[in-house]
Amino acid sequence: MRMILEAARDLSLRSLGQLGYDAAQAAIIADHLMDCELRGLGYSGLARILSIAGRLDGKGPARGPMQTLRESPVSARMDGGDHVGYLVAEHATRIAIEKALSAGIAVVGANRTWYTGMLSYYGEMAAEQGLVMAIASNATPWVAPHGGTQGRFGTNPICFAFPSADEPVIWDIGTSAIIHAQVVLAKRLGQALPAGVAFDADGLPTRDAAAALAGAFAPWGGHRGSGLAMVVQLLGVLAGSPAMPGELEEFGYLAIAIRPDLLTDPDTFRQEVSRYAAAVRATRPEPGGATVRMPFDRSRAERERRRAEGAIDVPDAVVSALEALPACAASGR
Amino acid sequence: MRMILEAARDLSLRSLGQLGYDAAQAAIIADHLMDCELRGLGYSGLARILSIAGRLDGKGPARGPMQTLRESPVSARMDGGDHVGYLVAEHATRIAIEKALSAGIAVVGANRTWYTGMLSYYGEMAAEQGLVMAIASNATPWVAPHGGTQGRFGTNPICFAFPSADEPVIWDIGTSAIIHAQVVLAKRLGQALPAGVAFDADGLPTRDAAAALAGAFAPWGGHRGSGLAMVVQLLGVLAGSPAMPGELEEFGYLAIAIRPDLLTDPDTFRQEVSRYAAAVRATRPEPGGATVRMPFDRSRAERERRRAEGAIDVPDAVVSALEALPACAASGR
Repeated sequence: MRMILEAARDLSLRSLGQLGYDAAQAAIIADHLMDCELRGLGYSGLARILSIAGRLDGKGPARGPMQTLRESPVSARMDGGDHVGYLVAEHATRIAIEKALSAGIAVVGANRTWYTGMLSYYGEMAAEQGLVMAIASNATPWVAPHGGTQGRFGTNPICFAFPSADEPVIWDIGTSAIIHAQVVLAKRLGQALPAGVAFDADGLPTRDAAAALAGAFAPWGGHRGSGLAMVVQLLGVLAGSPAMPGELEEFGYLAIAIRPDLLTDPDTFRQEVSRYAAAVRATRPEPGGATVRMPFDRSRAERERRRAEGAIDVPDAVVSALEALPACAASGR
Repeated sequence: MRMILEAARDLSLRSLGQLGYDAAQAAIIADHLMDCELRGLGYSGLARILSIAGRLDGKGPARGPMQTLRESPVSARMDGGDHVGYLVAEHATRIAIEKALSAGIAVVGANRTWYTGMLSYYGEMAAEQGLVMAIASNATPWVAPHGGTQGRFGTNPICFAFPSADEPVIWDIGTSAIIHAQVVLAKRLGQALPAGVAFDADGLPTRDAAAALAGAFAPWGGHRGSGLAMVVQLLGVLAGSPAMPGELEEFGYLAIAIRPDLLTDPDTFRQEVSRYAAAVRATRPEPGGATVRMPFDRSRAERERRRAEGAIDVPDAVVSALEALPACAASGR
């Protein structure tokens, strides 16, 4: 159904409250999910609250605090305390930004988390502060390495963000042939997967979503993309995650933030980034092709359009399910 | 011809001396080129000395020193002084390693260089010291972005290196559909390029190497790979390179080094990296497929084999051309 932005946000906040999140936590999560909706990534938007509810399984959010296990002027290592990644990664990113603004560069790792969301969300936070940021997040080994048929890494996103004189340059990709949420959705709807994106538990190619979830997804990008996914998995290990996390738990999140003036004049840098983006967009297209885009251009345009419209489309089934969420018994509310 | 390793190394040192490099410089460059030969990457090996000779054009190596323009306990920015990248990147990597061993993390950028070689060479230097390293190097815009037909980034390698309890994990890829040296070689031999890897100056697909050098190469990996190449180009800008360097000049080199104990127990980390690599190699292959490899496994095996044999194969034409190199008039030797 068509929902005005305020109504969609209110529904998110109420639903997250039903799950036991306090107002501050719900605001952080809802802001991220609304950004997904604005960018047209509905499967990572309000529907994700239902997936969070499934993971919490009526037990309420993690009760323990996130803790800092190691710290220096240029680093921090957090224990995410099994809190959802929207909270853990947001907190870790804030620490990385603070430390980099002060010391020039910082690395922050967090483990024991799950569902870290879109890394570009955190990359934008850093670019707004004038920082360059690199982020990686590993996950349950749902994806096979190139040439293999058993899971060895997650759908493993990686992101780089650069401040500019106008819009920041944000690159944020997943490293699997298909997104986990897409397979879950295909299973729910009884739809076939595209050919070539998954193996069943016996290692044979499959287009059945349930079989793929019991087997492994294919990686993106052949041996080069598969290697990048392994890099992300090991950056998660550096953040304290096990190399092969269990189902939807113990993900790692690693962020490196750099103040450009460590290396170059920051104003010149921002201008050069903008000039470069303009030069890429002005590239002569392939014969009959569309204008060349920078990464994130489409997301930014979609977001601006929906903001101007003041509304998003959320499937009726998602709205009904969110409105029917029972209050979490463990929440004490 | 078949050459014993010592003879090939001696020929490299003599040839580099003819170009005007002093003994210390020649040793650094020759070690890198011999590593390429050992790994079976002949087009980046001894033959590269002929390309360096072409770039120097009888004028001898750059005379000015490399200079440090900005420095902090966690960073350095070097002016490469138009020295060849084998020297600039090796020096920048050493500084990154020293600073990270001391401060925990460091970023070092260098600009005004060319031919940085295999980034894995520098990644191995860092992993040997127990450091995690990320490296990127931009170049002349020979490669078109996804959907475009004009060059906007170089063949742009990116590398990550991780120490382990046995062999380090090294991932080092180029982000173009074809390597610059391969196109140069195809032109020299009058061979056609594979289909789909290049555009001519009018933006039409071409298999002619000369036309490709006047036009643009295709990127690797569709919009995701093209985005990664742009990230590398902008990391080069952070290192002080212009976004679109001129022909074989003003490349940038950026290295980030991290001491794992900032975030986690370093021994546990090394063991987990080794366990992960073993788990990937033990992945059940695709039906009828070969054993799954980690990145760098093939290079390492090739290097060990040639070291055991004590010899490499260098094309006769390359050996003859190296032996015929005139002494550089500008070298003062």
